[in-house]
Amino acid sequence: MKHYKSLLNLFSAHLESYRSGLAGKQPAELYGPENYILSLGGKRVRPLLALIACDLFDADPKLALDSALCVELFHNFSLMHDDILDAAPLRRNQPTVHTKWSVNTAILSGDAMLVKSMSALESYPAEEFKQLSQLFLKTAVEVCEGQQYDMDYEKNETVHVDEYIRMITFKTAVLLGCSLQMGAINAKQNPETQANIYGFGKHLGIAFQLLDDLLDAYSDHPEFGKQVGGDIIANKKTFLLLNAMELSDEKQRQQLQELLTLGENKAQDKIKGVKQIFDALEIPGLCKTEADQHTQVALTYLHKIPANAAKKKALEEFALQLLNRNT
Amino acid sequence: MKHYKSLLNLFSAHLESYRSGLAGKQPAELYGPENYILSLGGKRVRPLLALIACDLFDADPKLALDSALCVELFHNFSLMHDDILDAAPLRRNQPTVHTKWSVNTAILSGDAMLVKSMSALESYPAEEFKQLSQLFLKTAVEVCEGQQYDMDYEKNETVHVDEYIRMITFKTAVLLGCSLQMGAINAKQNPETQANIYGFGKHLGIAFQLLDDLLDAYSDHPEFGKQVGGDIIANKKTFLLLNAMELSDEKQRQQLQELLTLGENKAQDKIKGVKQIFDALEIPGLCKTEADQHTQVALTYLHKIPANAAKKKALEEFALQLLNRNT
Repeated sequence: MKHYKSLLNLFSAHLESYRSGLAGKQPAELYGPENYILSLGGKRVRPLLALIACDLFDADPKLALDSALCVELFHNFSLMHDDILDAAPLRRNQPTVHTKWSVNTAILSGDAMLVKSMSALESYPAEEFKQLSQLFLKTAVEVCEGQQYDMDYEKNETVHVDEYIRMITFKTAVLLGCSLQMGAINAKQNPETQANIYGFGKHLGIAFQLLDDLLDAYSDHPEFGKQVGGDIIANKKTFLLLNAMELSDEKQRQQLQELLTLGENKAQDKIKGVKQIFDALEIPGLCKTEADQHTQVALTYLHKIPANAAKKKALEEFALQLLNRNT
Repeated sequence: MKHYKSLLNLFSAHLESYRSGLAGKQPAELYGPENYILSLGGKRVRPLLALIACDLFDADPKLALDSALCVELFHNFSLMHDDILDAAPLRRNQPTVHTKWSVNTAILSGDAMLVKSMSALESYPAEEFKQLSQLFLKTAVEVCEGQQYDMDYEKNETVHVDEYIRMITFKTAVLLGCSLQMGAINAKQNPETQANIYGFGKHLGIAFQLLDDLLDAYSDHPEFGKQVGGDIIANKKTFLLLNAMELSDEKQRQQLQELLTLGENKAQDKIKGVKQIFDALEIPGLCKTEADQHTQVALTYLHKIPANAAKKKALEEFALQLLNRNT
């Protein structure tokens, strides 16, 4: 993040100014949860990408501040509703909105946040407003579709790896592409350049999510925020598990099926056993290779972009730093 | 409705064309509920108002078809989520989405509908798109605020009548004003005319909701769709009950408090007793007077609008017909 400290500060000040308008606003039960979820922090990757993209083309990054606000509000709306769908009690170690208030409050407050994410774009002139809105609305529908596919796949007996890639593309990656493209629109870039920076963000997002699956099972860093093996305990159909099911021989598949039935009280045995099968099938390497391929595609898009070489290099380094995290 | 049969048919065809795009669309659990709730029918008052407003200014009503689609999708999104908040099992005598599918499905499918209501406006040129979007987004936030106030008031010990009027204004009336103003925007009307037709719709909406409260307790028409006295049974803080609490003397207030504690098994006694107090305090007349005042304000706005006199007369008759329903 070190390259972009000043951009992050710029956005933080903009978000704080927005939040100060929420404090004490009536009805409190509608705006309090919005203010609360925005107070929980986070890396602010999406708004930062919007500012980075605008700056990449030597436009004033301030031009992208409301695009950045739009994607951050939308991201937090989706967290608020996804936490209901997942029945998640905690978000960043704090109670989720539906736990702290109620499911009804989280539904309605999230609805208002979704509307306000779009209102954030109203500061732009009409042509730019329409370009940004069309991109954003297309992306927002895709994120809903991705969340639905994710829920569907947890119920489906068999899910193909390409269906999984489509799901993470919609659920996670398109919003990264959208954030960057919005910054490029604010910097008045042509459609070809917009498409290239979108492609960069999308494939970066896919690589990021694949490595997130890997890290969930294999992180050995003491600061890893989540429970290591959490996806395995929950039988989550990740890239790792889907490939293990596809590549295992009959004996391994049987072992895997048995391991999947183990309850919370045998969590450590389950994690150990499943990872032994992953290792035997060389799934971690497969996941890393798949992620690397998407990283390469992302960088190919980035290299095509006509922009200052030093700024492109900084963005490449930032992207690789995002991917190579071990927490 | 007879004046506007052809406009209603025009919208119905447009909605059917939109719905045909939903049939079979994947993921089915995201788009199926949207198609289902749109299939349940309804009077389509909001989209009709958008077409009527456009036609009032002698513009082709087809110009308002996507504004009409926008407000109808939004209205149905709000029904889908409100039915969760109200734990309502039925909507137009059919299972609600969260009953037929699940709460999670109704949340996510509603989210996608909200996004798509805004996407419906993308067919308009940039300047018009922005004008329509700003009006629509402002209205959408107000509808969320109205719903939150409604939920708040059910928990509050005391609610003032003016707070109640604000709640129904936001929850119901502003979307009627918005629908009409969108049609006026499509017909390229100036801001003053837009404000007048918005004011007409808003006050018509307030009058409509007040008469709805009255009808809930006093309808004697065999085709009244809801249970007569439903609001009384549920202790709903309507215009009638709030005024009764404000105007009653000590003895009446005590009687009223006792009646409010009666359970489902004494529903008929409760309805009869509460209505006796309403009658003694002349609340029905008060409600009618308040509704009439808003109707007059609405018509004053309508009369200010520079449009064909015969068309204005037809719209006035349509408005009075909406208000004078006895079912």
